[in-house]
Amino acid sequence: MANVLVVHGGGPTPVINASLYGVLRQAEEYKDIDHVYGAIGGSQGILKERFLDLAGFSREKQELLLATPGTAIGSSRYALEQEDYEAMADIFRKYDIRYVLMNGGNGTMDTCGKVHRACAEAGVRVVGIPKTIDNDIAVTDHSPGFPSAARYIAQTVAEVGVDVKSLPIHVSIVEAMGRNAGWITAASVLARKKPGDAPHLIYLPERPFYEEEFLEDVKRLYKEKGGVVVVASEGLKGPDGEPIVPPIFRSGRSVYYGDVSAYLAELVIKRLGIKARSEKPGLCGRASMALQSPVDREEAILAGREALKAAVSGESGVMVGFAREETADGSYKVKVRMIPVEEVMLHERVMPVEYQNSRGNDVTEAYAKWCGPLLGAEISDYIDFQEVYHESSAPLG
Amino acid sequence: MANVLVVHGGGPTPVINASLYGVLRQAEEYKDIDHVYGAIGGSQGILKERFLDLAGFSREKQELLLATPGTAIGSSRYALEQEDYEAMADIFRKYDIRYVLMNGGNGTMDTCGKVHRACAEAGVRVVGIPKTIDNDIAVTDHSPGFPSAARYIAQTVAEVGVDVKSLPIHVSIVEAMGRNAGWITAASVLARKKPGDAPHLIYLPERPFYEEEFLEDVKRLYKEKGGVVVVASEGLKGPDGEPIVPPIFRSGRSVYYGDVSAYLAELVIKRLGIKARSEKPGLCGRASMALQSPVDREEAILAGREALKAAVSGESGVMVGFAREETADGSYKVKVRMIPVEEVMLHERVMPVEYQNSRGNDVTEAYAKWCGPLLGAEISDYIDFQEVYHESSAPLG
Repeated sequence: MANVLVVHGGGPTPVINASLYGVLRQAEEYKDIDHVYGAIGGSQGILKERFLDLAGFSREKQELLLATPGTAIGSSRYALEQEDYEAMADIFRKYDIRYVLMNGGNGTMDTCGKVHRACAEAGVRVVGIPKTIDNDIAVTDHSPGFPSAARYIAQTVAEVGVDVKSLPIHVSIVEAMGRNAGWITAASVLARKKPGDAPHLIYLPERPFYEEEFLEDVKRLYKEKGGVVVVASEGLKGPDGEPIVPPIFRSGRSVYYGDVSAYLAELVIKRLGIKARSEKPGLCGRASMALQSPVDREEAILAGREALKAAVSGESGVMVGFAREETADGSYKVKVRMIPVEEVMLHERVMPVEYQNSRGNDVTEAYAKWCGPLLGAEISDYIDFQEVYHESSAPLG
Repeated sequence: MANVLVVHGGGPTPVINASLYGVLRQAEEYKDIDHVYGAIGGSQGILKERFLDLAGFSREKQELLLATPGTAIGSSRYALEQEDYEAMADIFRKYDIRYVLMNGGNGTMDTCGKVHRACAEAGVRVVGIPKTIDNDIAVTDHSPGFPSAARYIAQTVAEVGVDVKSLPIHVSIVEAMGRNAGWITAASVLARKKPGDAPHLIYLPERPFYEEEFLEDVKRLYKEKGGVVVVASEGLKGPDGEPIVPPIFRSGRSVYYGDVSAYLAELVIKRLGIKARSEKPGLCGRASMALQSPVDREEAILAGREALKAAVSGESGVMVGFAREETADGSYKVKVRMIPVEEVMLHERVMPVEYQNSRGNDVTEAYAKWCGPLLGAEISDYIDFQEVYHESSAPLG
């Protein structure tokens, strides 16, 4: 008999629990798999031998994973030391753990590679399940977690856009997550169903942010519309490469910055004398179950299943990745490919230049086309009678 | 024949369009009502005679009102002058408008009373439809708009709570709307399904905010939990009655303040050396269609219907209000009562003392009991295997 261990690393996504669910379902297909353990509280849970047998719970409880934000077994940002890796082989042997599935982002994939090397001799197979709302994991077309974060920002900006348009008295700056990669920020473009819809300006962390150009654009749009919606990445940097908002807290690897949205709103107020406000959904955007992408949920389950499948079939030191499959009608279809963890670790995936417009205040149609299918749901239709009024030559019709 | 005019005033809610829908449905019941006009862009729309016949649109387009955030006919914060009121009687006569329904908050109800007095002689009947996310309209049990804002904050804080608990490394300060009235902030308590759940601290604008007490509470909770969720009103004031965040912009009646959540997060970081972050859903919380309260939607439709019914039956200078009906099984049921606008205008409705706890960092069970039925939906159930692990004496089961 052999056991499986699932470990969660880093920040949650709306579908990390769906991948865990996928592992549980897949495990049922193998007669020689006895227990599926969750490492409680992330990688520290391995070292402390805090394991919970998840396969033992009712199907009903397991199904709740699909609708649960955060991570149901807990996660950590604990940085493992060399001695920790060395201790693991013994722990895995003690619990008959043959398959270790590590679900996380770039940091976790690094860990995944190290556990693989440390425990290969002991016959332990280690496979990574990608997870990041930021979509900054390389080589794979995208990672579970991102599509839901993308749907959240697109749907939310669409709604804020309708609100601002119906009482056009201010500039609203919506802050999107993704400090180094602008994928989420960019996804707000899918709120724009016709020209003139929000978002009116989009600022990515990949581009230097020029305050004067920003103010120029806001001033022009405010004059034209009265209500302007700007989406800005939390990680905007100036031409000097430094964050436009100075850091207020540092602790180990973590740096805490002030809010970009509040900073930009204040800038608009002070420099242009225009009323401005900030919306910063923050964690709400990675925890919303109502706006979870159904495509994301299915792919996250798939990633969990495929990770276990790969481990059982003997693979190790690889991560589940996605590629787009060519289809006759051009419709979206994903295929799974295993990627060596070393390949993944070569770089942080950021928004390529062809997805950025030339002025650096919007994204391209190519990006919208790439991102659209991931949302798994249409952005809602709304009725705007003000628009009808303006279009109509005989409004009293 | 007679026509109806609907006017929207002030900020949108998730259901102001539902009230408009109610008016349209109710108008179909009267043979002598010909047109239902929307004043495009709020009260200025009256003066500019920008009227659109809404009854003329397909049912399908009208149904879209129920799922449209913002206001589909536009709103304004324009302050009418005496001469404006005097001009209205002629305009109403010109368009055969006999029934004027004004949908808005306290400011709009003031306008409602003035239009009523200015146009009574012309035979025009003016009825108010309450609307506010802040729930600060007096006499009525609650106002359309608030229940959806309450559901949004409760569901969102529940999700953020699960996120923070699963990776307990920081204090999250969630900012809730409602500058003078804490009803929305308080509704976050409904996220707490069992003791220890988020929100861990709730701060209302009705209570002076003592920074030292706040820091004490946060420090204690962080030590105990590692992850703390605080919900704070955007309008928190210190013991001196001044906002804890100084104003950064003033324009006429409007004052724009910096973000309370960012301010408090920075305070926690600087004074306690604990990582903290802010979430400020802002406008997202009054525009979310996914978290619209079904009770709110039905009541908003009802308010629209009842307003027209009252006007047709000869009432004027009144607002539709809600009261709770006693039921045998204690279940929630609302009844409609007409309230003279003057009565409504006497005071701004804030959270009574019996809904605030003694330390001023939480709300009471009585408040939760009052607010709960308005959400119209259960706060979701989640699975937390970390909890199961801690409860279990034999975790490897």
